[in-house]
Amino acid sequence: MTHPLPGVGVFGTGFTAKAFIHLLKLAGFRIEALWGRTTDDAEKLASEMDIPFFTSNIDDVLLNQHVDLVCIHSPPFLHSQIAVKTLGIGKNVVCERPGGLGFEDTLRMLNAAKYYPSLMSLMTYNLRFLPTFQKMRQQILEGYIGDILIIEVRVHSGVMLDQHYNWLHDGRMGGGMLAQFGGHFIDVINFISGQKAKQVHGFLTTFQKHTAKVNGFREITSDDFCTFQMKLDKGACCTCILNNNVPGKFSYEVLVIGTKACLIAKDGILHGQSKSEGRGFGKQEVFESDDQKLPSGLDTIFPIEISEQIPVALCQGMMKFIESLKESFMQQDDKRTWDSASLQSAATFEDALYVQSVLESVRQSSETSDWVQVHPTGVNINTSINQTNT
Amino acid sequence: MTHPLPGVGVFGTGFTAKAFIHLLKLAGFRIEALWGRTTDDAEKLASEMDIPFFTSNIDDVLLNQHVDLVCIHSPPFLHSQIAVKTLGIGKNVVCERPGGLGFEDTLRMLNAAKYYPSLMSLMTYNLRFLPTFQKMRQQILEGYIGDILIIEVRVHSGVMLDQHYNWLHDGRMGGGMLAQFGGHFIDVINFISGQKAKQVHGFLTTFQKHTAKVNGFREITSDDFCTFQMKLDKGACCTCILNNNVPGKFSYEVLVIGTKACLIAKDGILHGQSKSEGRGFGKQEVFESDDQKLPSGLDTIFPIEISEQIPVALCQGMMKFIESLKESFMQQDDKRTWDSASLQSAATFEDALYVQSVLESVRQSSETSDWVQVHPTGVNINTSINQTNT
Repeated sequence: MTHPLPGVGVFGTGFTAKAFIHLLKLAGFRIEALWGRTTDDAEKLASEMDIPFFTSNIDDVLLNQHVDLVCIHSPPFLHSQIAVKTLGIGKNVVCERPGGLGFEDTLRMLNAAKYYPSLMSLMTYNLRFLPTFQKMRQQILEGYIGDILIIEVRVHSGVMLDQHYNWLHDGRMGGGMLAQFGGHFIDVINFISGQKAKQVHGFLTTFQKHTAKVNGFREITSDDFCTFQMKLDKGACCTCILNNNVPGKFSYEVLVIGTKACLIAKDGILHGQSKSEGRGFGKQEVFESDDQKLPSGLDTIFPIEISEQIPVALCQGMMKFIESLKESFMQQDDKRTWDSASLQSAATFEDALYVQSVLESVRQSSETSDWVQVHPTGVNINTSINQTNT
Repeated sequence: MTHPLPGVGVFGTGFTAKAFIHLLKLAGFRIEALWGRTTDDAEKLASEMDIPFFTSNIDDVLLNQHVDLVCIHSPPFLHSQIAVKTLGIGKNVVCERPGGLGFEDTLRMLNAAKYYPSLMSLMTYNLRFLPTFQKMRQQILEGYIGDILIIEVRVHSGVMLDQHYNWLHDGRMGGGMLAQFGGHFIDVINFISGQKAKQVHGFLTTFQKHTAKVNGFREITSDDFCTFQMKLDKGACCTCILNNNVPGKFSYEVLVIGTKACLIAKDGILHGQSKSEGRGFGKQEVFESDDQKLPSGLDTIFPIEISEQIPVALCQGMMKFIESLKESFMQQDDKRTWDSASLQSAATFEDALYVQSVLESVRQSSETSDWVQVHPTGVNINTSINQTNT
């Protein structure tokens, strides 16, 4: 006989936890248990999302006999310990990005995943699941653009952080553009190009240090502007800009330029343009497009000032991932077995470790790398001319 | 009595020389003498543009009694010596960017300009003359965006360099995206924001090293991809991407984000968007737009494969500059006197020196700056886990 979908235990009560729960339920999963940092938080969301069990005790979820699949959407500092413990108990795990606070956190997760290779251990780097990036990867694999020369990534958003102080405001706790959005794009660049960063240079800063709700002795330290460059291992260059100070909705553009053509994924539309013979480039063609709307119901479970700001692409990716997750559990003999073929696009803990390495290198570069002083011009020009001439 | 416009001597026979001559004539200037690196080059363009005198001898232009204004569009290595000599002879000078090959070249030009303060000494950083950048500067001065936080600049082009080997192919001789286009945007950022770079980090590279006409033992060394960041002196950050590997026409975007609003100049249109009270941003408004067509006749004096690639914005800026140049010479008592009020927006040799400092610092950074190695992940993970644990 075939079993129904596995029961799910969810860690976290924030935005992504709520969205993930909503989409899991939409796909037919039962949410059996919810963990929150306080019992109040857990109770509130459990009642809202109709979840039978809530707790602030980690083990109460992990050991719950109805829970076969654990989805981690807690603050990042707990990701690694919950993931490792889940695998140790013998349950499948899906973990929200990033893979913990640093390289060593993610290394522990990967080690556990390798120790239990039959258990599911996936990361929610879900831009991979968008039809546009799937198609982009395929076109690159098939040689449409030739050798990759340059990748330009630009992410603009104006997400308001005007809520009570939490880990999102703290750069050391996993907040900021680089960890929140940068990780997704570092992963998707690797996914589409098959290339990894060898060297990086980066710069992070925080322009908006206070909001109406975060002020006084507290200030925001998570980056709201980040730019970094990567030299990839097969010779391509990549430059990324992540800017949360831009008016309007979340928008992104991934431009991949090759020797023969270029591909542009921009806000859910994939364009291509091939170099024509002789001179210039050919006409722009649309190759693929994603659904441009929020997945069903997500606009109603959040207040309008939040749902307006939700990055549609990330939610569409999340939904596509959950559909594949469902498929992998269908037609199985046991609630804990799964078919890896349906999830071959999914990001693993090994991918998470790569992303984490890049994130850390970018941060390190921002703290230590040398900038070149611009020769001062103006005031003492004549003095320096005289010095030059003597 | 008032004199007619000054007679002009032009140095150079390349694309910008020809375009400049065309627009000067359109404005009513007489071109009295033309210099080319070879007499053949000079003769060819002189006959094409109907110029009475041509030579390959520099002094023959400078000392020509009909020449009162000298316009330098020679290869960059000659800019400084011609400009300094022109001023020494007591004639007005307009010099194509960049101001020579390096800082010391430009310093000599500036020194000469300061020694003869009544003579005209201007650089053709002419994006300043576009209505969109004039308006942008005004809006910033009037406080529309508040304090400037971030400036993002992106320049995409696909200019073909498939011509016989010349200085444009050589990074040390003034060729490349950084010197050719970067300088214009470094200048216009200073113009609109009033801020100068204190520190820079940059990366330059050349992807297309050969073309049908440049191959064998010769290769292109001028950069076709450049990205750099600047920390400006009043706290703003600026990031620039210059990419000549992108399909389609020349296009640019300058995004200036402030505490109160943002301004975007994109391909000749200036948009603004103010932060509304409470949350998010207001509606986007169009504040100004430039003429989107090539100035009259420029499309016919070049073959179509060149005229298609001409950056319209730079030619529009050139035309506006020449109109102001004409105005400054009108109603004067002498062919060498000019009214500085009409040219108050123009870039001086002091501006050229600033741009040159930044260009050199970006190049220096690209050669010397440290990149951070990304921690290798993959193969030896288990070894490194064991090492971590012991």
